[in-house]
Amino acid sequence: MEKAKLIAEIKEKKSFLCVGLDTDIEKIPKHLLDADDPIFEFNKEIIDATKEYCVAYKPNIAFYECLGPKGWESLKKTIDYIPENKFTIADAKRGDIGNTSRYYAKTFFEYMDFDAVTIAPYMGEDSVTPFLEYQNKWVIILALTSNKGALDFQFITDINGKKLFEHVLQKTAQWGSGDNIMYVVGATRAEAIKNVRKIAPNNFFLVPGIGAQGGSLQDTAKYGWNEDCGLLVNSSRGIIYASDGVDFAEKAGEKAKAIQQEMEIILREKGFI
Amino acid sequence: MEKAKLIAEIKEKKSFLCVGLDTDIEKIPKHLLDADDPIFEFNKEIIDATKEYCVAYKPNIAFYECLGPKGWESLKKTIDYIPENKFTIADAKRGDIGNTSRYYAKTFFEYMDFDAVTIAPYMGEDSVTPFLEYQNKWVIILALTSNKGALDFQFITDINGKKLFEHVLQKTAQWGSGDNIMYVVGATRAEAIKNVRKIAPNNFFLVPGIGAQGGSLQDTAKYGWNEDCGLLVNSSRGIIYASDGVDFAEKAGEKAKAIQQEMEIILREKGFI
Repeated sequence: MEKAKLIAEIKEKKSFLCVGLDTDIEKIPKHLLDADDPIFEFNKEIIDATKEYCVAYKPNIAFYECLGPKGWESLKKTIDYIPENKFTIADAKRGDIGNTSRYYAKTFFEYMDFDAVTIAPYMGEDSVTPFLEYQNKWVIILALTSNKGALDFQFITDINGKKLFEHVLQKTAQWGSGDNIMYVVGATRAEAIKNVRKIAPNNFFLVPGIGAQGGSLQDTAKYGWNEDCGLLVNSSRGIIYASDGVDFAEKAGEKAKAIQQEMEIILREKGFI
Repeated sequence: MEKAKLIAEIKEKKSFLCVGLDTDIEKIPKHLLDADDPIFEFNKEIIDATKEYCVAYKPNIAFYECLGPKGWESLKKTIDYIPENKFTIADAKRGDIGNTSRYYAKTFFEYMDFDAVTIAPYMGEDSVTPFLEYQNKWVIILALTSNKGALDFQFITDINGKKLFEHVLQKTAQWGSGDNIMYVVGATRAEAIKNVRKIAPNNFFLVPGIGAQGGSLQDTAKYGWNEDCGLLVNSSRGIIYASDGVDFAEKAGEKAKAIQQEMEIILREKGFI
């Protein structure tokens, strides 16, 4: 998907919400377990209930992979089911030597036809560039993650005061542009988002960490906004597990709508819509 | 697999060779393409031909994943086929927030029953520890990789002169021990292996980069050796694609044998056998 189309969708839906499809066979409502493909059945109902309120979907691959071949079938059916105007993100956090990253790119951009894939930057340029060879596809590079472990390495500071995540932002900017690179920037470090925005003024940020992980939507918008909106804010567990009863999809829709309404206020305040 | 058993296998086979099963549907001999499961058929013959000369097998998951559910079936059949006395490594380079890493651990340690999985350290402690909760299973953390992109971030140096890969070695050592953590250390940076060995005296190193990538076995042994041997040296393309004819397995066996013989000399010189 082109950046212009993503921006148009944000305006159209008055939302920059990404729904995380972290669909866990142990957490979905029990009545779905009799279905042929419970994971897909769950996703289908979640997508139907939330699609009016979001612009993107992000399945985390770990939840599908752990089910073996059946999990990959559920994932493929899910990606095929997601409406075409949605931005789709494979949250895979892949990254390998160039020769091998090429195959991960094939998986997510050809076999699965996702718009974007998340990438761990540790192995450097040749682990990322094979993904950038695709037209209108995106890499979303881990810069500043939302978890506790982010503090272990991402803030290591060089002699000039530059932190590892800042190195990642500056170096990777040479490999692509705001038209094919986004960054993961956790909402749990809202003030750090301000620094990230300074270094990467033109890139979209995928922001996890609101909801279950405790980050704030208001702060994310305050510090992360750019003239394109520049934000895709993800919520996974807070939406998809809003209820574990037969009303799970309805409740998920309500949660997504509530976030969308908060986002609409922000978009209006910013004069974006 | 316990460390003691791995060491015993190294002595028994007079080898510390790991065969990389980077099985690419586009590179395997054409006569296999008529088989029910060409990828598994190729692996089966490679395993039969090389198992006398190696102690470990390492499928790189990218090559299986890109084939969708069928690829995961081939991978599962392969892992089930590998003899029980071999150390098996899922070269997956995974890593996610704790809640999610748990599912990757399930995939590779429960569903697939690998002995070890490779992990990218960027997201820190909670992305690694779920893997360490398994008895007799291993994480193999990317420290110093063999590719060109390794220079982009892994050598970033803090104010005390400590490099990122050194931070990774020291920090991760607090999360486990030489009995459940190994490190990826590329053979293409043989002199750096010496530094890594100083920081991590008790850990096994998984060393990619000999063969197609140009690293030297002699230098690897010179700089990386410890009293347990402490090395698993991987060769993938150099062995498995030694021939693309009907003799591919035979040629792979010959290549593996040649490396094993070089390793046997080293093991004798070191007085290990």
